Parts: sequence; C-alpha cells; structure tokens
Amino acid sequence: MPLTAEQRDEIEGQRAETAATRRATVPALEEILYQPLEVLDHGFVRVVDYMGDDAAIVQAARVSYGKGTKQVRQDAGLINYLMRHRHTTPFEMCEIKYHVKLPIFVARQWIRHRTANVNEYSARYSVLDREFYIPAPAQLAAQAASNRQGRGDVLEGEEAAEVLDLLKADAERCYASYERMLNEREDGSRIDPERQGLARELARMNLPLNIYTQWYWKIDLHNLLHFVSLRADPHAQYEIRVYAEALLETLRRWVPAACEAFENHVMGGAQVSAGGLRAIRRMLDGETVAQEDSGLSAREWRELMATLEREG
Amino acid sequence: MPLTAEQRDEIEGQRAETAATRRATVPALEEILYQPLEVLDHGFVRVVDYMGDDAAIVQAARVSYGKGTKQVRQDAGLINYLMRHRHTTPFEMCEIKYHVKLPIFVARQWIRHRTANVNEYSARYSVLDREFYIPAPAQLAAQAASNRQGRGDVLEGEEAAEVLDLLKADAERCYASYERMLNEREDGSRIDPERQGLARELARMNLPLNIYTQWYWKIDLHNLLHFVSLRADPHAQYEIRVYAEALLETLRRWVPAACEAFENHVMGGAQVSAGGLRAIRRMLDGETVAQEDSGLSAREWRELMATLEREG
Amino acid sequence: MPLTAEQRDEIEGQRAETAATRRATVPALEEILYQPLEVLDHGFVRVVDYMGDDAAIVQAARVSYGKGTKQVRQDAGLINYLMRHRHTTPFEMCEIKYHVKLPIFVARQWIRHRTANVNEYSARYSVLDREFYIPAPAQLAAQAASNRQGRGDVLEGEEAAEVLDLLKADAERCYASYERMLNEREDGSRIDPERQGLARELARMNLPLNIYTQWYWKIDLHNLLHFVSLRADPHAQYEIRVYAEALLETLRRWVPAACEAFENHVMGGAQVSAGGLRAIRRMLDGETVAQEDSGLSAREWRELMATLEREG
Amino acid sequence: MPLTAEQRDEIEGQRAETAATRRATVPALEEILYQPLEVLDHGFVRVVDYMGDDAAIVQAARVSYGKGTKQVRQDAGLINYLMRHRHTTPFEMCEIKYHVKLPIFVARQWIRHRTANVNEYSARYSVLDREFYIPAPAQLAAQAASNRQGRGDVLEGEEAAEVLDLLKADAERCYASYERMLNEREDGSRIDPERQGLARELARMNLPLNIYTQWYWKIDLHNLLHFVSLRADPHAQYEIRVYAEALLETLRRWVPAACEAFENHVMGGAQVSAGGLRAIRRMLDGETVAQEDSGLSAREWRELMATLEREG
Repeated sequence: MPLTAEQRDEIEGQRAETAATRRATVPALEEILYQPLEVLDHGFVRVVDYMGDDAAIVQAARVSYGKGTKQVRQDAGLINYLMRHRHTTPFEMCEIKYHVKLPIFVARQWIRHRTANVNEYSARYSVLDREFYIPAPAQLAAQAASNRQGRGDVLEGEEAAEVLDLLKADAERCYASYERMLNEREDGSRIDPERQGLARELARMNLPLNIYTQWYWKIDLHNLLHFVSLRADPHAQYEIRVYAEALLETLRRWVPAACEAFENHVMGGAQVSAGGLRAIRRMLDGETVAQEDSGLSAREWRELMATLEREG
Repeated sequence: MPLTAEQRDEIEGQRAETAATRRATVPALEEILYQPLEVLDHGFVRVVDYMGDDAAIVQAARVSYGKGTKQVRQDAGLINYLMRHRHTTPFEMCEIKYHVKLPIFVARQWIRHRTANVNEYSARYSVLDREFYIPAPAQLAAQAASNRQGRGDVLEGEEAAEVLDLLKADAERCYASYERMLNEREDGSRIDPERQGLARELARMNLPLNIYTQWYWKIDLHNLLHFVSLRADPHAQYEIRVYAEALLETLRRWVPAACEAFENHVMGGAQVSAGGLRAIRRMLDGETVAQEDSGLSAREWRELMATLEREG
Repeated sequence: MPLTAEQRDEIEGQRAETAATRRATVPALEEILYQPLEVLDHGFVRVVDYMGDDAAIVQAARVSYGKGTKQVRQDAGLINYLMRHRHTTPFEMCEIKYHVKLPIFVARQWIRHRTANVNEYSARYSVLDREFYIPAPAQLAAQAASNRQGRGDVLEGEEAAEVLDLLKADAERCYASYERMLNEREDGSRIDPERQGLARELARMNLPLNIYTQWYWKIDLHNLLHFVSLRADPHAQYEIRVYAEALLETLRRWVPAACEAFENHVMGGAQVSAGGLRAIRRMLDGETVAQEDSGLSAREWRELMATLEREG
Repeated sequence: MPLTAEQRDEIEGQRAETAATRRATVPALEEILYQPLEVLDHGFVRVVDYMGDDAAIVQAARVSYGKGTKQVRQDAGLINYLMRHRHTTPFEMCEIKYHVKLPIFVARQWIRHRTANVNEYSARYSVLDREFYIPAPAQLAAQAASNRQGRGDVLEGEEAAEVLDLLKADAERCYASYERMLNEREDGSRIDPERQGLARELARMNLPLNIYTQWYWKIDLHNLLHFVSLRADPHAQYEIRVYAEALLETLRRWVPAACEAFENHVMGGAQVSAGGLRAIRRMLDGETVAQEDSGLSAREWRELMATLEREG
C-alpha cells in the first residue's frame, strides 16, 4: 500500500468536506475524488480536481448562454461528430488535475507531453523516500529480437532471479549512500555532528532512475486523450501504459460520452494511408492483393494486415 | 442591456441549480457565477466555471496529500514568495472559464495570447447579431501626437458628431447588405424565394470590425495574470483595457491572496534595468544625477523618472 | 499584382545577396526565397527564412553528431516510419518563416493555430491599404442546403451581380469613411487642418473583414503539416484552402521526403473508427454489410462509404 | 574531452561543407557552428543550426518586405525599446537548435521549459555510455543552513573524499549491473549465450541520475532568453547554470544587440514591487526608511536592500 496512515488521514479529511456549488458536477467522479488508484508497486494516480463534464463540451461547441445541452442522445451525437472530424477545441474546455506517484524513468517519458501543468516534488528542497520500482516477475522481459525498442519473452529461472537481486541491491546501496552523504535527520539536524552533509540538490544525483517521485499534473481533456492514445497504446512501455490505463478509468467516470467516442474513433480505430486505402478498395472489389503488387512496403503491408486482422 | 430575456432565463436557470461537491469551492465567486459583468456598450464577461482557489496554489507548491495549507497568513506569505521569485507553475494549477462578448477588433488583440483555450461563435455556421460597438463620446480620441500608437485629446463638436454618424451609418449599411446577401429568415427559409442566398461564410466578410462576436475562453491563473498585466496596462487600448479590468474584478473574488501579490509585485511594480538601478544607487548616495550623465537614453530616463514620480 | 514597385525592389535586393553558410541548405527552396506566391486577388505567401531539411529530421531522430543521414532511400524509409507511427518530435526540428498577406476573415481562422509565432502589421500604428478581397465569380457560392457550414451552387445572373456590387460599394464607402475620420496624409500631416483626426486604433473598427492584413508567421514543420492537413482539407473554407495549398507547394520544395510521407499517410489517408474497421473486416470476409446492420450511424456509414469509394 | 575521434570527424566533416544561401547569415556564429563548448566533466553545448539575426527581429517588428533594417544604431534602439516594453513576439522570430550533452538530473530541470522542441537519445532503443557527472571538489557543497534549497560551504577533508568515493563506486557498480543485465555486445549479440538479456527499456532503470544523456533542443529567442534569465540566475543550481552560461555565450555571437538589451533590462535589472517603489521614493525624498516602517516584510526588505546594494 503506497500511503502512510497520516497521508490516508489527510485524504479522508479532504473527502469528508463538501460544499454547495453552482458548477457542473459529476457524481461518478466525486465518488473517487482524492482516492488513489494504485499503479505498479508503490505508485498511484488520484484525481484532485476537475472542471466540466460531457455537457461542457456541448456548451462550448454551441457558445451557449445556459447549459447548451439538449437530450443526452443528441449531445452524444454531437460529441461523436466533433471527435470524428477533429474539432478538438471543445474538448479543451474540460480540465482535470491529478496527483501522481511514479518512478523517475516513467516521469521522464510522461513529461515529454508539454501541454500540461506540472508541480513536482523537489529533491532540491526535500529528501526523497526510500521507494523503488522493482518489476513483478511477469514484467521481467527480455529485449525483443525483432524490435529494437520493445520487449520479448519473460526472463525465467536464474537470470530472472539475478536481475531482481541486482536491482534491489543497487537501489539499497545507492539510497544508503544518499543518506550517508546527506547526514540529515528528519528534523534537519545532523546525524554525525562532525560532518556537514552534502547539499540535497547534489546528493540526489546518486539515486537510480527507478526511485519514485510525485507530482501534481493538470491537463485539458483534448490533450489528455492524446496522451492516453499514445501511452495506452501497445507500443508504449508497460510501466507507463498502466498509468495511462488508470487515467482512462477516471475518464470513463468523468466524461463517459467523450470517452466512448474516443475509444471508438481513436483508440480502437486506425489511420489508414492513401496506399492502404487503395489496397482495401481493390480487395473489396474482389481482387486478390499481395504485398508485392500492393505498392506498400513489407512493413506497411504487415501493419495493414494486422489492422484488418488478416493473414498477409 | 446586452442580453435577451431568453438568455437571462437560461442564465438564471443555471444559477438556480446547485450540487454538493468535494472540490475546492469559492463562495465569493459562486455569488456571481454565470452573471454577466457589462463591458462597453454591448459586451460582457461572465465566469462560467473555475477550478481551484488560493489554497490550491499552496497545495501544488507543496505537492501535498491533503489540503496542504497552513494558516491563511502563512499561505499568503508563500504565495507572495512564489510571485516575487517567479515560481510560476503553482499558479498554473488554477483554471477559469469565461464567456465573453466583445467587438471583433478587440477579439483580434485578445487572441494573440496563445496559452488559452477558445471556442468562438461561428459565423460560418450561424448569422451574427446586429450589434456594433459605437464609442461613447468620452472615448472618441484623436490620434496622439507624441506616440504613433496611442490616443490624444477627445474629439469635440462637429468632428465628433461626424465620426459617430459615419460609424453608425456604415455599420447599418454593411449589416443591411449582409442580410440582403444572406436572404435568410431565422428559421433558415429564404426571404426572397427567387434568390439562393450567399453562403454565410462569404457574407460575413462584409461586416465591419466593430461588430460583436463571443467566445468561451479558458485559461490558467498564471497566464491570466500575464494577460491582465499587459492588457490592464495604461498602454493598452481602452477597448481591451476595460475587459482586462473586468477580469481583474473576478480575480479579486476568486483568489484574493494571489491577486494581492500580483497587484503589488507585478501591476504596481516596475522592471528597472541595470542602468536604472545604477542611477538610483547614485541618487540614494546623495549624488545629483541628470539624464546626460546617467548612461540612459532620453526615453529611458523619462520612463525611469515617471516610475520614481520625480521630475527629470 | 499585389506588390508595389518599391516592394518588388526590396525583395529583389534581398534575393541578390548571398552568403556562405555551414548550415543545411535547400537549393529548391532558395530558388523561390522571398518571392511571393500569389493567392486570391491581392494576397500572397512568401518564404522569408527556413531552418533544416529532410536530413535534419533524420539527424534529430538519431541525435547524431554529424549529418546522421545514410542513403537517401534509407532516410526516406525512416521518415515514413516516423510519420506512420506518430513520432512527431523529429518533424519539429525544421522551422520555416513566411510573410503572408491575407483578408482579415481568413486571418481570424488562421490564428486559431496557436503553436506558431506571429507578428502582424499594426493598424494601431499604421494606416491599412485600400485592398479588399472580392471573390471571383466562380467563388460566389450559395449557402449549402445539406451542411450548415458549407457552400452550395454558384450564384448566377442578377443575384451574383448584386452581391459583387454590394461587396465593392460597402468596402469603398467604409474605406472612404476611414480616411475621412483619420484626416491624415501619408506624411502624417492633417488633410483638413481644422479637424484633429480620429486615433488610428479607433478608426480601423470601421473596416470590413475582407480588408487585407499581413503578418510574419513562423512555425515548425510538425505543426505546419497539422495546419495544412486541416486547412487544405475539402471541408475548409475555400479562401483559406488556397493559402494552405500554397504552403504545401513550398513544402514540396523544402522537405520532399517528409511531404511525400505526409501526403500518403495523412492527407490522402483516413482515420477509420473501430466500428468502421469491423465493417471492413466483415466485407473482406465476403459478407454483404448494410448501414442498418453495420453498427454505424447513417452519417458515419456515408462517410465510410465515401472513404472506400463505394456506393452505400 | 567528451568526444570520440569518430564524433570529432563527423563534426569536422560537417564544418567543412559550405553552401551559398540567400538567408540571413551570422559569421560570428558560423565560426563555432557544430563545435562543442565543453560544460562540466563530460557535457557540452553545440549550435547545430540557427534562423535569423538581430535584423530579423527588426524586420518582423516592421512586417517589412525587404530587410526592414535601418542603421545599426537605429535597429539597436528599436530592439531596446521592444525588450523594455515586453514586446516579445519579434524575438520569437529567431530560432536556434543545439545539441546538448548533460547529466539526467540536469535534463530533468531543463525539460520543465515547455516551449521548445526536443529529441532525446533513447535508452529504450540504445545503450547509454558509461559517463557520469562527478562534481569537481570546488562544487562539493554542503546543504545551506539558511535556505532549504541551496548550497553552503564546500566540503573538505575526509567528508569530501568519502562523498567522491561513494558517487564513483555507486556509479560504477550500477553501470556494471546494467551491462550484466543487458548481456549485450555492441553488435547486439549476447555476451553469455545462455542468458537472454533484459530489455533495454527495463535495464536503464538501474542507472543513477548523474549519468549523461543528450538531446537536440530547438527554441525561439524569446523563450531562450527566458530560460537563460531563470537558469543563469544565482538561485539556479550550479550544474544547470554553467549550461545557461554557455548558451549566453552563443547568444552574444548570434544576436549581439538583443543580447545586450537582455543583459541590461532583464539579467542585470530587477522587478521592484509597488511597496519597494514607495520605499525608494521616500528615500529619494531624503527620508530615512527602516524595514519596520517600510510596509515590506523582513525578507522583502532584505531583498530590496540587496538590489540597491545598501545596508538595511
């Protein structure tokens, strides 16, 4: 469990307080507000605030004076249309804020999405906790043979055991050196009064990339959907994919109509190239098309066949 | 009054609905939620949603599990510190959404601020209303003599009267042509059944820049403060300044501590150059400094003296 | 012809100067550097600077010390791969700067693309020229019956003539009032010494949306391709589409490999939804699928059939 | 020396090629194009491309057809004016691209500046080199007593020696484990044929934050100046400050007039609050002002006195 008793108390304290508001409110999301959804061995995602709902998308698309919504069904139809035709600005009118705890190597991929607001826990200012991501055995994958940037079979036996031992031992040792260099008790006083203690902003450089950090992260719905479409994709690294899937879960509660349109048109859909469309049209006309006469490269052909769930 | 009875009803309908929420809520802002603050002759600014409050700034700066706030006074101290030292990211953690009605020439300045989300009423899709900005007599200023980009004295007498006549007559005539070209009743049917009616996306090009448009505009607090600092500035054009001042009013209700820090450190403060600081230091040492031996250009010297409220 | 003799001289002067550089240089683009490509009746697009080429995309993707490129064919293969898999960041490593002259109602659509840098000619500071967009007869389209946001048949006969007369007469009259209110000669002196002249920032509000403005516009290749994909699309308004097509022409000279990948994978391709893919798979399996049993709405089905070039 | 012979050859190869261009060219920057400026023990900054020069700022501000520049002195005056009055958009019209090698903990601060384009060397795709930042003895600073986020005195004697030993030993050991887990020769074949080798995207998590990474980084001049103003500031961590100073050096070659205006108005200047200005005005009027009656907090007063170089 990733939280201390004190942290759980703070969260429960915040959950206990309610107030009346005139704003759009989403009961299904309120239900889990502030609560951590656990991810990996010590990480979490928790929603700490939100603005808007499905109706806010419709309202902005119509630039309306009141709610701007009609019947739920008509609203869903409009949302579908907007998603299909890449009218992305109404989706920017919803905003959500998360508190995320994640390993630094995941954070480094995450932060590449620039259209978001971030406040990270500062290791210049504070001491990081002794928490490292150690993969579950099922995630100890070998390098893929076919793809320079992917995973192959799961390691087994001695090799797996050795990897886990190395990861754990190195993390422990690096953290012990970190503490030794800092020479600092929780109250800021020195452990060994003879030593000054290295500056926190320097000592942190000894920590490995699987140590956990955390941040507040705020983003609009359009950019969040884009993040999820890239990071919940099967090509994304497993360790960020599980975060993207946790985000997707919160989206289903928050904006169910937008989320359904997204899962249909983006996540479950595919961009087919001009060449790919030509091949499909020929096949629909009854022609037998092979890669060689498709005009597509071997790799594109393979990808197209995978999309169509056909043997090449 | 810029609203129709129907629009007022929609707004009142929305104001009447409240719900319980666990989110941070700001009663002083809820009080005016959805209500238009009137600006210019037909324009308005109204808050339609918001996320966060002063405490959310503190909470993000501390990456905290609960509210993260201490006493109100300590929180204000931290907000002051963040503002003074340009730690801008915690201010990005608050978000606000407005519905704004404004003349197109003002909208064109406004939109230059890119870090915001916008949905504008579409004149490709709908017919624009017959509403034009006609300056009040006190705003009918002559071109400034000293500044290519500013206003001088107010026009008077016949010249003022003629300007108003021209503005009104041209607006009326352009709008009449717009309607004639559209050939369209409110229900979409043709006025003159013999004429097809020009496409809305073309007909709109005949409208003058003082016609009103409207949009939903969403922005984070940091970028909003930047907008206000530039557009509530005395160098900004009057017609956008009055909108910036209306926004500032909503900020005072929403985030009073951040707003006070902003008015002290940014709006009421001044950036002094290295050369300006050298001159001030010499004056504080008792030296009499003149522009000629200050190392500043005549223009910079004048600006420094204005900042210090001294005769050059 | 949209340029004065003086402007042409300035352009030719700049074209005549060359210098040696170690930077990546693209002769096919240098050939037209600074030269206006004419668009609409008075507008243009001209490239005024650029950074990078196809090889710079490859070089950034490889984070290489030297050129990073292999054979042209291999480079094109990598660029194709990056485009297909939405690895967009290497495309951001190329940058281009344009000088564009365009009607204000087009500029208002254009500016909605926020990830770009813009400097617009200031009508607070200077007087706008007497140049208005008047559509060619072939562009005088009626409102579409089927689509609230599109064009139908071309207007003909008296209706067309009347529209052109109204557009021209209103533009002339508004501009005459603008000049009358300004009361200003080119050298800044007063025409009528008894009148002060209205401030330029006010007088401009009387100008219609078809008057021409101009700006410098700088953007990276990834965002430019996104702009072109939306604005060269058949759903875009004709008056911005012709600009997007002029931009696309400059892209073909500048980054031919990236441009070819873009035209194949994005412009000529299509996003097919999960439901659309299911329907295609069934059809490829020999099943006859009708809209009713496709799981798609009537509109989505129509769009899918159009993509596949089949009768529904 | 941070480069291998092969890398030096690639760089020299690129430097040897020149071409004729019609674009704005800056000889002082061409002189060092592609050459690494060394930073820290293994890092560097090198300019790999640029667009524009001082004149391009003026040209954009004037939206001109030709060069848009007048005399060098007048141009510098305009650039100064733009800088002083926060007319930032013309500075966005210049763009520069760097190749940077830097420790990961520095990269994590750097990437927080979002308005830039980045391509980082991928440790999912490739193996990272065995290069770690080990501080020079003069940089082994203790934690500051007064400031939670800063450095105090330099460590000496045994404590310093122990810190260096720990940093080196942990880095060596982590890297050895990384290689052991990868089980991969440079040509991709297995070292121990009995072991599969852990996926690169997983093995990297064992590396400490002082390992070097590298990226291509492209940014416009306005945002670069903002970066430098924050990161060359005395409050910035030393390890990123030295990079910011290397960037500033390249700016002096590239855009000398903009850089001088920046160093005068921003870097060497100060933002003085409304309260600070009131205190200065009273002092200039001959009044003796103490913190207690200044209306400023103790901390703000101290900061103001430091700015004015006076004893409080």
